[in-house]
Amino acid sequence: MNVAILGYGVVGSGVETIISEQLGDKEPIKVVKIWNRPNKTKQIPYFVSDIEEIINDPSIECVVEALNGIHPAYEHIMACLKKGKHVVSANKAVVAAFFEEFQQVAHDNQVYFKYEASVGGGIPWIKELKRAKRTDAISSISGILNGTSNYILSTMAKAHLSFSDVLLDAQELGYAEADPSADIDGFDILNKLIISSYVAFEARVKPDDFLRLSMRGVTLEDSQYFHNLGYELKYLGTANVENESLEGDVMLTACSKQSLEANTSLNYNCVSLVGETIGTLSFYGQGAGQLPTAHSMVQDLLDITNESHQIKLNSVKDISNKGLKTYQFVVRSQQSIPESFVKREDQGYCYLLPMSQLRFKEVVMPLLEETDLVVKMEELRGECGD
Amino acid sequence: MNVAILGYGVVGSGVETIISEQLGDKEPIKVVKIWNRPNKTKQIPYFVSDIEEIINDPSIECVVEALNGIHPAYEHIMACLKKGKHVVSANKAVVAAFFEEFQQVAHDNQVYFKYEASVGGGIPWIKELKRAKRTDAISSISGILNGTSNYILSTMAKAHLSFSDVLLDAQELGYAEADPSADIDGFDILNKLIISSYVAFEARVKPDDFLRLSMRGVTLEDSQYFHNLGYELKYLGTANVENESLEGDVMLTACSKQSLEANTSLNYNCVSLVGETIGTLSFYGQGAGQLPTAHSMVQDLLDITNESHQIKLNSVKDISNKGLKTYQFVVRSQQSIPESFVKREDQGYCYLLPMSQLRFKEVVMPLLEETDLVVKMEELRGECGD
Repeated sequence: MNVAILGYGVVGSGVETIISEQLGDKEPIKVVKIWNRPNKTKQIPYFVSDIEEIINDPSIECVVEALNGIHPAYEHIMACLKKGKHVVSANKAVVAAFFEEFQQVAHDNQVYFKYEASVGGGIPWIKELKRAKRTDAISSISGILNGTSNYILSTMAKAHLSFSDVLLDAQELGYAEADPSADIDGFDILNKLIISSYVAFEARVKPDDFLRLSMRGVTLEDSQYFHNLGYELKYLGTANVENESLEGDVMLTACSKQSLEANTSLNYNCVSLVGETIGTLSFYGQGAGQLPTAHSMVQDLLDITNESHQIKLNSVKDISNKGLKTYQFVVRSQQSIPESFVKREDQGYCYLLPMSQLRFKEVVMPLLEETDLVVKMEELRGECGD
Repeated sequence: MNVAILGYGVVGSGVETIISEQLGDKEPIKVVKIWNRPNKTKQIPYFVSDIEEIINDPSIECVVEALNGIHPAYEHIMACLKKGKHVVSANKAVVAAFFEEFQQVAHDNQVYFKYEASVGGGIPWIKELKRAKRTDAISSISGILNGTSNYILSTMAKAHLSFSDVLLDAQELGYAEADPSADIDGFDILNKLIISSYVAFEARVKPDDFLRLSMRGVTLEDSQYFHNLGYELKYLGTANVENESLEGDVMLTACSKQSLEANTSLNYNCVSLVGETIGTLSFYGQGAGQLPTAHSMVQDLLDITNESHQIKLNSVKDISNKGLKTYQFVVRSQQSIPESFVKREDQGYCYLLPMSQLRFKEVVMPLLEETDLVVKMEELRGECGD
């Protein structure tokens, strides 16, 4: 199978490396053209400057899309699918935004659109979610889905450094972008939850269905406070379906020290599904990085060369957040908080606010604006007598 | 696809339940006959008393083998394969003992022989090991592969109970067999490592290539001693390939509290591979139990109905243990131990013996006979200044 790669950054070059060095002649996969954005063209093998040379080349059967962001990734993916080429993408932003359109056009042209690397890096998450779904209704997906934010939190906890110091380090080391918003405000995790929800629930979910709270406000003191209580702060994404309602959120969460999530460090991801007969199934591996991400893309390529059955189109239903989920939050405040809310005091510093009777669309959001830190407190609920 | 089930115990009946209740008419899989050992035949649907009614029924395309032990499982599997029926097995003892023969006969008859449920229960371990191997050389497989021994160790640690008390409880609850040897002497883990080694390393390995040490000697004091040092005792299986030598072992291991293994409780399994480009990839889920194990068998059935390419036969090479691996052990002893071995004392109770210069086939085994507890101490090595 002749393959073209769009984008020769970290991931794109990793795909080329694995195909040439790991597969060798074992598999009939060959990179024949590589396109990159202008002025990033030096020392690229198989380089073509004009994307049309790929789109209009009938000998190219599959295109690996390793660009960032929506444009021009969207246009190139669509053009390739319409020309009857399989597409493998690692680009969560464009996959989350145009999931259904890509599936439809791929189906119309009887080609594969695959996106394993867009969620969980090297973890075979999408593959296993699809497999589990063959027998099980999936009720929940959740986990650590962003390596950068996890690197920041685990380094804060281990090295006793402030959020801003670790973020600066991470930016200097290239682990975090100059504009870190996608990673630390939860947009990246949100995209991964949207993609996973399409697969797990066959559901069309919108960003507004998720309660997304930034992790920018977290302090070293917060990290240490929860550590001393037996918890580690992690930036989790969750999507549950219950009674036809999708309850989803992205937020700092206090995870019991005995949980897999609390013990997932640095750029590792840990993501779990709950199925009817399988119960909880968790996957742990490198959620980012050149070779792990490229590995997932090459696995998609191998699946395309090995699978021979018809491309099916799953129906997708609308499912919205009916606001049925109740939350408990910890709010750090110097101000006084009504006594009925306070469950725990610690040298005038931390307050536990159980809001189990409040639904976030009605009441919680305004309250949150007064706070610096928000933590989902399901784990601590028992301890506080609720 | 018409399916027959051999064995209507916990797992066999689970397979029937999932096919009838979860798949329904979605998938073309139908249970048509069930065979069970004599005098366990009441209230079995589709029951046939004569196995020949299955073997000689050309309308049955696939047989689910959910028996225990080598005989008559071996004979029935061989007969079905030779009649051109796919076979799905959950029986690690027979799969480990006759892996190559089953693969060969399946290949000769161009049918599938699948065995996902034989290792790791509901975890898609075999599937993902095969996938990772398409691009990566696998250097290591390891983890918690036996639910019963893990239930015993985690209950000892959590409830502060002795080994024998927990074992008795487990036997009463049906978690452990009347003769618990397979679980607590490591034979079950060994079978799973042998099967995994065939897949991961394409290697023919023999039980003698593994250092297998029973966990019978473990005491509550041992569990608490390591807990206080920041470790949890787990009964791990490991197989590594380095320089064409297989280094494998089954033994109690002190796992850092921050490891996934230390946080794997009760009947859960946690198993990891290390690949060239993917790095460490870990899988966590229920390693035993009716529905998780049956789930894996039904996933194998679905793969058979969906896969349509030729049955390939992988070559298997001989690979033996050259005894290159060195170990460190902790030996609990009331007797005096030469000073050069002792690295840590604790109220005259525990001694740490670094044996990093000793190779187990030469020196370690005789030494071990004097001891009650053996723990692999790689994790603690740094702490002891080695």
